[in-house]
Amino acid sequence: LSQKAHFVCVVPGDNDQQDMVPNKKSAVLVDGIVLNGPTTDAKAGEKFVEEACRLIMEEVVLKATDVNEKVCEWRPPEQLKELLDLEMRDTGESPHRLLELCQDVIRYSVKTNHPRFFNQLYAGLDYYSLVARFMTEALNPSVYTYEVSPVFLLVEEAVLKKMIEFIGWKEGDGIFNPGGSVSNMYAMNLARYKYCPDIKEKGLSGLPRLILFTSAECHYSMKKAASFLGIGTENVCFVETDGRGKMIPEELEKQVWQARKEGAAPFLVCATSGTTVLGAFDPLDEIADICERHGLWLHVDASWGGSALMSRKHRKLLHGIHRANSVAWNPHKMLMAGIQCCALLVKDKSGLLKKCYSAKASYLFQQDKFYDVSYDTGDKSIQCSRRPDAFKFWMTWKALGTLGLEERVNRALALSRYLVDEIKKREGFKLLMEPEYANICFWYIPPSLREMEEGPEFWAKLNL
Amino acid sequence: LSQKAHFVCVVPGDNDQQDMVPNKKSAVLVDGIVLNGPTTDAKAGEKFVEEACRLIMEEVVLKATDVNEKVCEWRPPEQLKELLDLEMRDTGESPHRLLELCQDVIRYSVKTNHPRFFNQLYAGLDYYSLVARFMTEALNPSVYTYEVSPVFLLVEEAVLKKMIEFIGWKEGDGIFNPGGSVSNMYAMNLARYKYCPDIKEKGLSGLPRLILFTSAECHYSMKKAASFLGIGTENVCFVETDGRGKMIPEELEKQVWQARKEGAAPFLVCATSGTTVLGAFDPLDEIADICERHGLWLHVDASWGGSALMSRKHRKLLHGIHRANSVAWNPHKMLMAGIQCCALLVKDKSGLLKKCYSAKASYLFQQDKFYDVSYDTGDKSIQCSRRPDAFKFWMTWKALGTLGLEERVNRALALSRYLVDEIKKREGFKLLMEPEYANICFWYIPPSLREMEEGPEFWAKLNL
Repeated sequence: LSQKAHFVCVVPGDNDQQDMVPNKKSAVLVDGIVLNGPTTDAKAGEKFVEEACRLIMEEVVLKATDVNEKVCEWRPPEQLKELLDLEMRDTGESPHRLLELCQDVIRYSVKTNHPRFFNQLYAGLDYYSLVARFMTEALNPSVYTYEVSPVFLLVEEAVLKKMIEFIGWKEGDGIFNPGGSVSNMYAMNLARYKYCPDIKEKGLSGLPRLILFTSAECHYSMKKAASFLGIGTENVCFVETDGRGKMIPEELEKQVWQARKEGAAPFLVCATSGTTVLGAFDPLDEIADICERHGLWLHVDASWGGSALMSRKHRKLLHGIHRANSVAWNPHKMLMAGIQCCALLVKDKSGLLKKCYSAKASYLFQQDKFYDVSYDTGDKSIQCSRRPDAFKFWMTWKALGTLGLEERVNRALALSRYLVDEIKKREGFKLLMEPEYANICFWYIPPSLREMEEGPEFWAKLNL
Repeated sequence: LSQKAHFVCVVPGDNDQQDMVPNKKSAVLVDGIVLNGPTTDAKAGEKFVEEACRLIMEEVVLKATDVNEKVCEWRPPEQLKELLDLEMRDTGESPHRLLELCQDVIRYSVKTNHPRFFNQLYAGLDYYSLVARFMTEALNPSVYTYEVSPVFLLVEEAVLKKMIEFIGWKEGDGIFNPGGSVSNMYAMNLARYKYCPDIKEKGLSGLPRLILFTSAECHYSMKKAASFLGIGTENVCFVETDGRGKMIPEELEKQVWQARKEGAAPFLVCATSGTTVLGAFDPLDEIADICERHGLWLHVDASWGGSALMSRKHRKLLHGIHRANSVAWNPHKMLMAGIQCCALLVKDKSGLLKKCYSAKASYLFQQDKFYDVSYDTGDKSIQCSRRPDAFKFWMTWKALGTLGLEERVNRALALSRYLVDEIKKREGFKLLMEPEYANICFWYIPPSLREMEEGPEFWAKLNL
């Protein structure tokens, strides 16, 4: 098929409702289906949306942020299955019944916006990103080409540019992805492509054993990425960390030499800024020195710690990050942009990202459009349909300003200091180590163990 | 760090507002920051959400579905940049200004819900999935463990089970992913893992050249997947298609023999049910025979065509799909569930998906929780944070019932018949071929060419 022919996909929206037969006198029948009647009861649908929005406002936006309410109405799986009416049937439910279902979904869901939700790396309600997210859902865009997503592509460009500025690069490239894990995969593949561009076409078979380095405290996505990309988890070299969970640069360099000696091909170091459990920051400057000496790509997984870049007081935690070749940074964590909002930022400005990822689909990325097709950034992605995740962060940034975002970070770290002080003061709690970020690791010591000496028996009992 | 110690990440939500100092008498100051004051102006935030919701209701839900409104207020990139105030500044904007910005974003965005939006594979507004999506955004869950996402994990299980039923499997496994492209990647990696489980640890280097087969009309994600997974695009063998864009089974088998002769290792056939441009359906039964003969994994990319399974009238297009080992199917297209809603379904029930993808992160997937941890399905995913995409489809299914979804599909295909008939009737239009699905490919012949014979000159001019 020539790319110049037209193709349309007919979908079952109301695209026939009013315009196909203007005077509405005769019904158009095909295969027994009246084509020029309405497909859905729009009035009923609109009413349902309005009522549901009231419910969401009351039960989620207002109640779920109220400290006097529960974080979660806990039920074990088998019991919850009985409480929820999960079965999908031949005929639909009434709007009234659907609203009851919505209420149940809310009732038994964990309120991640709740002041006392402390489970993983995010919490709290940001009203501004929430509005952006509602808009996204209502507009239902897909961010591949400018003609389909003009506003969202420009917003993504603006947000990436600003994040690049905070990393300390003069220019760069980037893309928003569905998760920090996926960003880390992108970076790993990009580093590999830079190392050997032939891999895109030829694959890895017959090549020397590629090897990458990361700290023993890195996120588990490194292993997932190595396995998914065909590198293999055994070719991820986990470098020893110090007592605070930071990669030891001397150990890294030793491992690189060792790998070379064994005939493997080192191509990448993944440093972590803000490890998942300890919140440790690898020493980026020393690691960058080693990467330069050995010609290795430096990727920084700052999915969690990247937010500290917004704070003049705390950005020193990431000292040296401007020397990275790529950075993963998730504004959906400490900056509260909503799941998911994850950027991969790349220092290269020569089009490496696009060269590495493009497949040049001619039905989508025509080169003779009536606008500058460099705005059709979809071909930089492994996705085809893609959500406008930059937009929710943009809205929050607009609402709070850089200073407001800085305050969020400063406040989180001040709260951490407060918690550490309280842990030290209170009986039955034992701090693991002084934190450098917002992760506080501690033991709760039950009364029965408080008088015991910290020998093997103590630890065995505590660990039960 | 033992997995039994506690760790909390302190985030800047209002997790201090009312409970830290109950009588609110004394301010808690750390690093110059008052910790027991509110972090954000909740009242102002709530008011903003309410006003924005009204705007979204009016400008998107109501107006953007009105055929008398524009699909798009088109502006080229440079001009749109001037019209939008994209810059993020040190201080935040007023709620009034933010609402103006929201209005601009809506004004210049493409209305994909509009009756005349015909760009790519989806359109129309489904009120029920929209409500589910608003709920998702408000609740802001992440679907990795049951303790954080009890409802959404059970919903995903129920939806996967039902989709598996429609494929015709007695049981199976699956996961929702951010896009059909990603689902195809999952399947490719899974097939490779099944072929040689060692790859997860050892990687591809030193292995024979793995090779996979798909049709020349397949989606471009096949190339992207092969490149990303380290297989290499040259190891994707594009099998010739017939005049309607369907893979020719005899050609497939020839190619498999040829690859074997060349010493390559065939492991996977990716058939397509509903190709992107022509809407062609590969003959699954014949392809399954070949896969069985050669011991190859059969993946069916039914991202677009899978919806036909909902229709008793049209499901014959996918005859033989129950013989596939895996299927990608996106309810966000013809079934209107909202971007993104994409399932990968796997016939294996022995835990292959989990074995292939798990990294067993001990901080998240503890094995000694107080509930059945088989509900912690996050370790089947390459993502860590993951959105509850099954939920929006569940809500629509609940609202319309299976019969309502069937009607959607029947209606879309009846509309396609109608369009084909109109194209045939009208001067200046030329149908490329009789469609078998909802993709209608046609030429518009400008008046100057209507009398010309269809020789090389005609085609050259038409293609200008």
